[in-house]
Amino acid sequence: MARPPPLPLALTMGDPAGIGGEIAVAASRARRASGMVFFAIDDPARLTALGAPVREIETPEQAGEAFCDVLPVLPARLAVRSVAGQPAPENAPAVIESIRMATDLAMAGRVGAVVTNPINKAALYQAGFAYPGHTEFLAALTGAKNPPVMMLACPALRVVPVTIHLSLRHAIAALTTQAIVTTARITRAALRDQFGIARPRLAMAGLNPHAGEGGALGDEEINIINPAIAQLRAEGADISGPWPPDTMFTEAARQKYDVAICMYHDQALIPLKTLDMHRGVNVTLGLPIVRTSPDHGTAYDIAGKNVADATSLLAALDLAAALARGRVEN
Amino acid sequence: MARPPPLPLALTMGDPAGIGGEIAVAASRARRASGMVFFAIDDPARLTALGAPVREIETPEQAGEAFCDVLPVLPARLAVRSVAGQPAPENAPAVIESIRMATDLAMAGRVGAVVTNPINKAALYQAGFAYPGHTEFLAALTGAKNPPVMMLACPALRVVPVTIHLSLRHAIAALTTQAIVTTARITRAALRDQFGIARPRLAMAGLNPHAGEGGALGDEEINIINPAIAQLRAEGADISGPWPPDTMFTEAARQKYDVAICMYHDQALIPLKTLDMHRGVNVTLGLPIVRTSPDHGTAYDIAGKNVADATSLLAALDLAAALARGRVEN
Repeated sequence: MARPPPLPLALTMGDPAGIGGEIAVAASRARRASGMVFFAIDDPARLTALGAPVREIETPEQAGEAFCDVLPVLPARLAVRSVAGQPAPENAPAVIESIRMATDLAMAGRVGAVVTNPINKAALYQAGFAYPGHTEFLAALTGAKNPPVMMLACPALRVVPVTIHLSLRHAIAALTTQAIVTTARITRAALRDQFGIARPRLAMAGLNPHAGEGGALGDEEINIINPAIAQLRAEGADISGPWPPDTMFTEAARQKYDVAICMYHDQALIPLKTLDMHRGVNVTLGLPIVRTSPDHGTAYDIAGKNVADATSLLAALDLAAALARGRVEN
Repeated sequence: MARPPPLPLALTMGDPAGIGGEIAVAASRARRASGMVFFAIDDPARLTALGAPVREIETPEQAGEAFCDVLPVLPARLAVRSVAGQPAPENAPAVIESIRMATDLAMAGRVGAVVTNPINKAALYQAGFAYPGHTEFLAALTGAKNPPVMMLACPALRVVPVTIHLSLRHAIAALTTQAIVTTARITRAALRDQFGIARPRLAMAGLNPHAGEGGALGDEEINIINPAIAQLRAEGADISGPWPPDTMFTEAARQKYDVAICMYHDQALIPLKTLDMHRGVNVTLGLPIVRTSPDHGTAYDIAGKNVADATSLLAALDLAAALARGRVEN
């Protein structure tokens, strides 16, 4: 018996004043003949106004047939017409509804993954959105037990920061053995179960220059990071480090691990974006569903001009499809 | 009238138990026909024992004739025979004397630049060496007014960290407007006077993720970095920023500046080493002489095996030669 075709992917609207619609259309053209199927949860009228060939669908199951010709759209209708570059708080409910529908479909096993287009948080806050961002909203919708973990992935490198959107000073203060252990555990489980890596190799970064040089340049390696490594090893994790941060992202070093666990935002994102500005994908680990997103914002400055680059969205869709299959080719 | 040939470069011994001798010999072979001339300040007997064709010289002026056939060596004789991988405190005086001779010759205008091989600081401390490292020793020998500034340079990127060998926590605490201004001033003057860049473009990094996002993710940009930028602009500097650290080292971003002024060690060294592990050169700015060094250590683990890679030393020699001419081709 042939394997059933893979489930379609659900792509959310994101901020309708941003580039989400344009890149969704561009991505559907680019993947038309790839075997992948995705549909947008968006306003068919606003996509048609972009000049896009779209077809309204009523269920995810109708996406497959439509996808070879058009971008299938499951409707989440806007309250007011969206204007490129001008966020409209009236449209926040549709933006939120799009995320909720995608998540519900993933939880029900009717889509293989959720891919989210960038939102404008400030516009959502004005409309009463009570979550710091996508990730926390998805955690609440799916009943995730732990705070989810953010991975950034590109073909050359995967990084997971233990602390994220904190000032550098606060990130250091927030670093605990428990936070490192929890982050590494979720990462390890996801690499095994979603990425299909049987025995994931984790590389733990130091916090300080030269990883503290035995305590001469900081003691967080000794007091916080080493105990986390010991605990993770006791659980059977294949984990190395703490590595001097400046030499752990070279080409030779990257061959030795499947993911780098990083102590703060820029320690993770500087090497990733320096290596590959356009193909970075944000993957949320620790959710009961697969969720990826392009690693850029709403890009109001270029929205509506049809110059937006769909590379990161395509990478997010490709990775979501692989994760939905439970296997990432390395 | 023809221009006089460029002055020779002086290459110090470095730790005789490390890879300095091997890479000096390899570099002299590699640059024999290049027009560059350098000589080692080292023990001729120990280099001969490495199987190297060397010729003892008495003055720097004799180096040019010898260099097409052999590595010219101005003697700094060791107290005991050096053994690869085994530091000998008895040899510390010769290591120090080599640095002193090179510096004196540069101050006297008899060599174009000083290129230093890596030392083992611990071994020098045991012998009573009173400086934290090369840089401070050179500052004392040359009577430099300000603490010198460390630049790391590779073909793709130049970075200057404002703070260097401090724990990350202490680096944040040590960051002041005055430290940033002083570092940027020395960098700007060196780019103009030594690198021959008429109007150097400086890019100032933020400290925090997203450069603090208007204060939401840290206030050092507002309270410390912005005032430094304002002061430098008032002095006529072409300076941009503060830039979000994670996106300022992409290929497109790097086209917009000649040097990145970075707030801490790894913010500077992660992108540099990720981009180019082997061609990084350490350049000391703010000295009255030109000084470069390879961006690696003594490498005891491979010393004496003739497997050491001279790439970084060659890059250090090439950059020193260009700086001695007062012009770096971009």
